Amino acid sequence: MSADALAGLFRARSVALVGATDRSIWSTAAFANFGRLGFTGRVHPVSRKGGIVHGLPAATSCAAIGEPVDAALLMVPEGAIAEAFADLNAAGIRNAVVLTSGFAETGAEGAARQAALLAAARAEGVTLLGPNCLGFINYADRVPIWTTQPPMPVIQGGRIGVVSQSGATAGFIAAFAQRQGIGLSYQVSTGNEADVSVARVVDFLVEDPATRVIGLFLETVHDAPLLAAAARRALAAGKPIVAIKIGASETAARAAEAHTGSLVGDDRVFDAVCRQLGIIRVACIEDLVFTAGLLAQVGHVRDRRLGLVSISGGVCEMAADQAEAASVAVPRLAEETRAALKQVLPAFGTANNPLDVTGGAMLDPALFARSLPAFAADPAIGLVACFMDVPDTPEEIEGYRGTILRQIGEGFRAAGKPGLLLSVMSRPVTEAGRALLDETGISYLGSGVLHGLGAIGRAFAWAERQERGVPAIAAPPVPSGERPRGEHATLAYLGARGVPVVPMTLARSAGEAVAAARALDGPAVLKVASPDIAHKSDIGGVLLDLRGEAAVAAGFERIVSSARVAKPQAAIDGVLVAPMRAGAGIELFVGVLRDPLWGPAVAVGLGGIWVEALRDTAIRLLPVTPEEVLEMFSELRGARLLDGYRGMPGIDRQAAAEAVARIGDAALALGPALVSLEVNPLRATAEGAEALDALALFEEGA
Amino acid sequence: MSADALAGLFRARSVALVGATDRSIWSTAAFANFGRLGFTGRVHPVSRKGGIVHGLPAATSCAAIGEPVDAALLMVPEGAIAEAFADLNAAGIRNAVVLTSGFAETGAEGAARQAALLAAARAEGVTLLGPNCLGFINYADRVPIWTTQPPMPVIQGGRIGVVSQSGATAGFIAAFAQRQGIGLSYQVSTGNEADVSVARVVDFLVEDPATRVIGLFLETVHDAPLLAAAARRALAAGKPIVAIKIGASETAARAAEAHTGSLVGDDRVFDAVCRQLGIIRVACIEDLVFTAGLLAQVGHVRDRRLGLVSISGGVCEMAADQAEAASVAVPRLAEETRAALKQVLPAFGTANNPLDVTGGAMLDPALFARSLPAFAADPAIGLVACFMDVPDTPEEIEGYRGTILRQIGEGFRAAGKPGLLLSVMSRPVTEAGRALLDETGISYLGSGVLHGLGAIGRAFAWAERQERGVPAIAAPPVPSGERPRGEHATLAYLGARGVPVVPMTLARSAGEAVAAARALDGPAVLKVASPDIAHKSDIGGVLLDLRGEAAVAAGFERIVSSARVAKPQAAIDGVLVAPMRAGAGIELFVGVLRDPLWGPAVAVGLGGIWVEALRDTAIRLLPVTPEEVLEMFSELRGARLLDGYRGMPGIDRQAAAEAVARIGDAALALGPALVSLEVNPLRATAEGAEALDALALFEEGA
Repeated sequence: MSADALAGLFRARSVALVGATDRSIWSTAAFANFGRLGFTGRVHPVSRKGGIVHGLPAATSCAAIGEPVDAALLMVPEGAIAEAFADLNAAGIRNAVVLTSGFAETGAEGAARQAALLAAARAEGVTLLGPNCLGFINYADRVPIWTTQPPMPVIQGGRIGVVSQSGATAGFIAAFAQRQGIGLSYQVSTGNEADVSVARVVDFLVEDPATRVIGLFLETVHDAPLLAAAARRALAAGKPIVAIKIGASETAARAAEAHTGSLVGDDRVFDAVCRQLGIIRVACIEDLVFTAGLLAQVGHVRDRRLGLVSISGGVCEMAADQAEAASVAVPRLAEETRAALKQVLPAFGTANNPLDVTGGAMLDPALFARSLPAFAADPAIGLVACFMDVPDTPEEIEGYRGTILRQIGEGFRAAGKPGLLLSVMSRPVTEAGRALLDETGISYLGSGVLHGLGAIGRAFAWAERQERGVPAIAAPPVPSGERPRGEHATLAYLGARGVPVVPMTLARSAGEAVAAARALDGPAVLKVASPDIAHKSDIGGVLLDLRGEAAVAAGFERIVSSARVAKPQAAIDGVLVAPMRAGAGIELFVGVLRDPLWGPAVAVGLGGIWVEALRDTAIRLLPVTPEEVLEMFSELRGARLLDGYRGMPGIDRQAAAEAVARIGDAALALGPALVSLEVNPLRATAEGAEALDALALFEEGA
Repeated sequence: MSADALAGLFRARSVALVGATDRSIWSTAAFANFGRLGFTGRVHPVSRKGGIVHGLPAATSCAAIGEPVDAALLMVPEGAIAEAFADLNAAGIRNAVVLTSGFAETGAEGAARQAALLAAARAEGVTLLGPNCLGFINYADRVPIWTTQPPMPVIQGGRIGVVSQSGATAGFIAAFAQRQGIGLSYQVSTGNEADVSVARVVDFLVEDPATRVIGLFLETVHDAPLLAAAARRALAAGKPIVAIKIGASETAARAAEAHTGSLVGDDRVFDAVCRQLGIIRVACIEDLVFTAGLLAQVGHVRDRRLGLVSISGGVCEMAADQAEAASVAVPRLAEETRAALKQVLPAFGTANNPLDVTGGAMLDPALFARSLPAFAADPAIGLVACFMDVPDTPEEIEGYRGTILRQIGEGFRAAGKPGLLLSVMSRPVTEAGRALLDETGISYLGSGVLHGLGAIGRAFAWAERQERGVPAIAAPPVPSGERPRGEHATLAYLGARGVPVVPMTLARSAGEAVAAARALDGPAVLKVASPDIAHKSDIGGVLLDLRGEAAVAAGFERIVSSARVAKPQAAIDGVLVAPMRAGAGIELFVGVLRDPLWGPAVAVGLGGIWVEALRDTAIRLLPVTPEEVLEMFSELRGARLLDGYRGMPGIDRQAAAEAVARIGDAALALGPALVSLEVNPLRATAEGAEALDALALFEEGA
């Protein structure tokens, strides 16, 4: 079991430091960390030369240690790795952390060395973290196999598990969190991920009782299906994942390739995966730490309407603007709340949300204890966010600033609703300040207005996503073995799979075309029927709005001769006759593609210029439910056009969403040989949806 | 002269503290600030009761001080203000700072009291800051008339002048800047702005030699024309203005109204003013301070392509992603640069931009001094941004972290191009850290990646805007006195003003319509001609694409009878006959409106659903040049449609821009009675632009 294997590594009680030497800053830091973090197990320096290392007698090999060892930290040069692994095996050590670099991140030869390393680990059942990683710290059980100095002193009882491919970045995240008074449960650097991937660590942390929130720094995703499965379990368990994923820019993608030797993948697909699986995506370490810190303290907020409080009108207004930018509702107060507040506020105060308690609170800090409960009593408010910096020094805590904080704590307690204190600008918390927060029981973010409201918005969106539940994964349909080629066959295939498609007749002669058109209730569309012609309009293969038998007969001949001239090699089955659809309606684009990391995904957009010129699409991994497709619709920039414009009625979103979901299922049933399936347009009206054209492409030879 | 008047206030050499008392925290703080900031002038406590106040004998009135006094700080209750003003006059004091609140911010009665206060000041030629303000600090000349404790110790030689309507917010900005090691030249709180507005202070700071960058916190704009003029002068002088303006959300606008008694204005118009005048708009105090701090240190960067450097690959990649988000170019390196870097980097390093100097720099800090000049020598790089935290303590500065910083300083100096050091995460600078920065001459932002790249992007955009120059203001056209009513007259008016308009004939009978249509080279459009019918289509008053005499004649009769039925009271002049425009082309919307704060402004957008459903418009104050209209086009979300799509050619942007500029001039020439002028559509093609419909509305009775 992968989670059990990681428990053996992360909860090691005895550790060998292989390649230990007083001359290395890595070795020195790693050894010192056992003392710094209060590791209560045993540490064994191992050096080929023996002697005294880090003040202890060094064993000349792991096998020579003479007692069972749970894990080894390998700090030997790349050339000595194979020998070190043989020694591990001899000593029966089943967990290895490899600091050594010079593997897949250096190119093809390094990748081969890494494959050999992995094979050696697999052969002996060794769990391998790295290579090219800084190790991990398990703060909950005080197990630090980590090769640089962590921020000190450690904040106890941390609830955030941080996993990062970049070791330096894991260190930056840990340092920033500590400075902000936010503790970690784990910090894990996975490096090149020869064996243990971020996904496996996430999988472990979902079950870890000390971890309430998971924070990720990703350069690539090596194990997309496992990460997706772990993210689903995390969402179901109510354990948020907050992730930075680099590679939105081409420059960063190029840099990451140089740095890790891995492709970063399509950023839009990763973004879609985050929406779909409830992963909170952020762009910077500050937002990672503040969002995770908020969720670790306040958790799942059920009623997501915000009350804002400050002693500064200016701060109130900035916070209100940022709340709107973060899509957080700041409701108006009820009349009773205003009346109650007027009883406790100074004469020049105004009872609003945001609530400006005025600078009078500097002279009368009890204003907070009096006004916070009256304010929070408003039925429209679910969370109270109050802006006030935490004092830094014991002197400040003794003075009025400490008094204000204690009054806020009292106000929050009396309010009986979730309360959060935020700094006005981003700033660290001192040890003295943290002690005051602990004493008063106040949840706090030193985030400033911008990052604070951003964190609240993301936490609220996550809670809303969590309440919607994890979308059920339908059993993947059994591949049908079908290979529909060309428009007619593809539409027929979709129709058989429950997708509403336009009725269509294949005419092999002008006479058949006329007969088919006569059966229609109105004008006809004629299109060339050929599995070899993809862009029919470009070669004159489509005629719209034909009325009357003469026009249809002439149209048949024109299309066939145009196609023969333009594509002399193409097999032409005849001409498709379909009813002309006109009037109110919107053309949607539905495209299924196979992402190299994540597998089949569907993109939905408004058709025409929206897709072609503006690339306005929403993406999800398949399968999708109609509910997920409705979310996709609302993500489109042109979404409001679906509700009708210029007097046109809106479309039946539910019907269109069901059609998209069925197209997705139909695409999955075509199996892994499907390269792409495009329905363009899916025509949506107030009455329903109907596929007017479709094309499937398969791998060569499939 | 307003600027001279402010110099008298801001450079006061003797100050009376009116209402001084040891029992007030404001009075105590204000008095202590003179000592804290090293004021070298004279301070006079004034108290009706006399006695000893703040350790000095208090005068019983200003008149009793017995020597000339430059400025008075009024801390008396609202009811005693009139008496205090009489005393000022008796003493010949020409500058007053009024802390007292209870004026316009409290409602109509307060506004009346404020008007009386202003009248008293004007009558005696007193320059008045406030009421309801915290005062100002002139750091350059050490003149602090400020009523709370400022952050200490003060950073000398600050170059940022901060002006804020909210006093508390001015204090927050100053505190955050100081914590980040960024000094101010001024901090001014304007409060209710009875007399001295933010605009007047900006006007003063544009000329102030100590101030290199101006930072604003605005809740409203009381003096829009003066602010616009000052912003133009600042842009011409190369002195950037960075501004927070609240009120983007309805909630904040409501809160600001409660807080200051002023309307915040249309946020989209303010945004447009910022674009037009080169004001850098930001959303939070962090971005205000970091952007201003960057510009104060690095100034105008001529070559705006960025080189990124870090010891962490993860940081390199985050920075590259944020650079793209901030529209900053991170160019690829030339082959020669890569070759030169390979000479100095460790074997496992890769010579890219971003440049990952690798963790090897921890062991070999001279890597920075060696690689920075080789990197910066690349011809594509204009500014080098290096990520590394500044050490906090003397011990760290003695250790390898200090060495690294000195090596970076050496590398920057040898590079001979602008260099900037940034922290990886937002964090303060200690005094020891600041001393090290001074010693090494390094320009530094403790901003972290996100805010740092944002600041660089804004500074680059400002520099680019500055190089484009300040748009010339054409002399406002002499109002023509014309009042065109209805489509025909309005198009004729625009045509006479040089706007290309569709040719149009007014037909008073079916026969005249047929004759007019016959003269056209193709199908005709018929529209009802009536000054009383605005929405012609809604009442069947428009017929398109009429071909042949019978159709035109019948169309005339149909339109007239439809209009008579739908609008029996309307005067019907006849029917307009115009050529039908069809084929490739884009419909633009051009609308002129009068903003209550800023005056006439023009909005341009793509027509139809773009304006109606998506509100995709760009706005500028009038007059606009064609160059400014071209900028407006590029701001539209649908801008790329102007370059053609689906095989359609792009439009002639220059011709369309000239038409919009002329429409703006024509609107100005209609004088202040014009409420709105709408040209919809302005049809743009590859050949030119042409107004197809237009409507002007005037104030009742004008």
